[in-house]
Amino acid sequence: MQTINAERLIARIHELGDIGRDPQAQLTRLAASDNDKAGRDRLVAWLHAAGLEVAVDRIGNIFGIWRDERNAGEAPLMLGSHIDTVINAGVYDGCYGVLAALEVIETLKERGVEPVRPVVAAAFTNEEGVRYAPDMLGSLTYVGGLTVEAALATVGTDGSVLGEELERIGYAGTAEPGFAKPHAYLELHIEQGPVLEREGFTIGAVENLQGISWQRVTIDGVANHAGTTPMAMRCDAGLAAARVGLFLREHIARSNAPSVATVGTMRYEPDAINVIPSRAVFTVDLRDPDEARLSALEAVLSELLVRIGTEEGVQISFERLARFQPVDFDQGIVEAIETSTKRRGFKTRRMTSGAGHDAQMIARIAPSAMIFVPSRDGISHNPREHTEPDDLVAGANVLLDVVEGVIGRG
Amino acid sequence: MQTINAERLIARIHELGDIGRDPQAQLTRLAASDNDKAGRDRLVAWLHAAGLEVAVDRIGNIFGIWRDERNAGEAPLMLGSHIDTVINAGVYDGCYGVLAALEVIETLKERGVEPVRPVVAAAFTNEEGVRYAPDMLGSLTYVGGLTVEAALATVGTDGSVLGEELERIGYAGTAEPGFAKPHAYLELHIEQGPVLEREGFTIGAVENLQGISWQRVTIDGVANHAGTTPMAMRCDAGLAAARVGLFLREHIARSNAPSVATVGTMRYEPDAINVIPSRAVFTVDLRDPDEARLSALEAVLSELLVRIGTEEGVQISFERLARFQPVDFDQGIVEAIETSTKRRGFKTRRMTSGAGHDAQMIARIAPSAMIFVPSRDGISHNPREHTEPDDLVAGANVLLDVVEGVIGRG
Repeated sequence: MQTINAERLIARIHELGDIGRDPQAQLTRLAASDNDKAGRDRLVAWLHAAGLEVAVDRIGNIFGIWRDERNAGEAPLMLGSHIDTVINAGVYDGCYGVLAALEVIETLKERGVEPVRPVVAAAFTNEEGVRYAPDMLGSLTYVGGLTVEAALATVGTDGSVLGEELERIGYAGTAEPGFAKPHAYLELHIEQGPVLEREGFTIGAVENLQGISWQRVTIDGVANHAGTTPMAMRCDAGLAAARVGLFLREHIARSNAPSVATVGTMRYEPDAINVIPSRAVFTVDLRDPDEARLSALEAVLSELLVRIGTEEGVQISFERLARFQPVDFDQGIVEAIETSTKRRGFKTRRMTSGAGHDAQMIARIAPSAMIFVPSRDGISHNPREHTEPDDLVAGANVLLDVVEGVIGRG
Repeated sequence: MQTINAERLIARIHELGDIGRDPQAQLTRLAASDNDKAGRDRLVAWLHAAGLEVAVDRIGNIFGIWRDERNAGEAPLMLGSHIDTVINAGVYDGCYGVLAALEVIETLKERGVEPVRPVVAAAFTNEEGVRYAPDMLGSLTYVGGLTVEAALATVGTDGSVLGEELERIGYAGTAEPGFAKPHAYLELHIEQGPVLEREGFTIGAVENLQGISWQRVTIDGVANHAGTTPMAMRCDAGLAAARVGLFLREHIARSNAPSVATVGTMRYEPDAINVIPSRAVFTVDLRDPDEARLSALEAVLSELLVRIGTEEGVQISFERLARFQPVDFDQGIVEAIETSTKRRGFKTRRMTSGAGHDAQMIARIAPSAMIFVPSRDGISHNPREHTEPDDLVAGANVLLDVVEGVIGRG
């Protein structure tokens, strides 16, 4: 069995991870920022050094293309992820997938493999969505889900305009997004969740990606004095809100579904010790890999809110903040991942991606799948984000196997 | 039956209520502020006009004293409340009690009554506690619960020093707090709760005042990705916090006690839609008129927090922010209130004060009680605070009767 160059891969992850640190050593490479430019420059230098053709499209997506005259007419196999980060990030999220893609290509090149189709290492713009909304903007634009003009006109949280920033840092490319329709797309990524580690698996063969429903709920009760208002005469918006998250947790436990529900934000008004909350504003994040189940869960939430409104004597309104349908990945690629892990002796399980990834966008135009490796304590978007080097290497070797299978399949 | 001068009382309530309004017509007379000075000046002018002797003590408490050579050696009957307000206040809280005290004295004077003991109308400094902590600072100092030096050194939320502010506005008096130990103390006040209105009573004979226990609870869970962390692998500080208020409500309903429990403040960290809360910080306000029951309720909370900590896999700590024992008022005065209301045909009930009042401080040194009148919708600390004029007059007439009884009893 071939293997990638483990030392080179891990050295590059840490070298890229050292770019964009502030004086407190916090890592932040927001999309199209000066730090992002520094990271992009380093990546492009590596792509060039590996002998790849580099293309940048109009939304700043970077492609390292390995092709020759013989296979240039074939649809490429695309491998990728992103190198922009959140604020105070870890070094693996996204970067691992991009650098492993480069590593796999270099390994194959060094071994003299002659692929039947081009292989491309891609780094998509603004996956994190911290500076510009929506997240996964680069891959969304690449598949035509957002026009290039609209994407370039996006105004960031800092008032900047994405198109102007891409010009400024030298990554407003000329290729038209979508210029190469992939034969297939593969993304290697850290899990960003605790499942693989807790259950003792090395590799997750990601067969689908959760649908997401975000709602903001506002409950209006009556502010009254905490001392003078008997319990039975209250319309307590805070207690009404408290019921929502607890009910959803019980409902999901009873249903035995893989759904998740999170009340991540909460605000009381007037937020005073001795005043019954007149208002509670909170968000509900619902996810499920099955569209029918996700819709049913949304209906359960709606019914719950009506019931709580009646029982608690409060007014409840809610607005949808975001809604994405679940994505099913390509079964053939998922099986290829499993075949590799069996051959290499890695414990593997099929799983659902709970987070959003560029793969869900590319899946609109090409058969796609993802490979996950364990995240220590399930932590990501945090400097404590960690994956054991052995697991990083294992994931890259599985990627190598699947790539070999695809470029050999013709 | 004698009656007070209803028009004069109500006109004064509204005249005082017009002092301290900002350009948006919001009423705010924080203790020892310029607006408070203006209110005090008006009150003192009325006290003088009524022929009363005016004394101001070192902590700024104002006393309008009606006495003569014959009764000057007797302990005075003290009637009072406060004229400082919260931010964006109503016009009744406190002011009603002070102005009704003045009104009762004027009525008795005009009728040629010769009391066997002095009668004093008192306005205590900083009852609301918005600018300086603790609340009821003036009456607390008056009864020796706080030294004058400590009280004067109190630093306000705006960085001001109470003693300096009292000097500045001309209300750093010379009388020693506690200079006159009352024979008895009576405070007429709006209920600030919904009970009298909802149950159709005109007068509340307040026989006790709830004990108060304030705690701040901090729950530490684990922040994880809302999409990638299965429900069973979470340590959700927000859900753990949600259980507390709901449990206390159920517990109190089962116990059939008059206890109240309020979770009035709540803060999540990191407070992001797609992150499981790592921390929830909230307050619990527990009140009960019975000390044993209040202590038992605190124990129930402690046990609950331990249990939630275990069941939810979270760390829980809490700190006590405030603790006041319940206060029992004087049964003789409460009965005198009931005798008056029966004679006048007012529907009355005995009740507990859920809010703190100066009466709870004066009760440490003299037999005390309170008279409540209805608050529309239970609202106070708000411009919508309202009591019907008939109820205001009814309360003042009951106060008049009780005063007559006390000063006639000798």
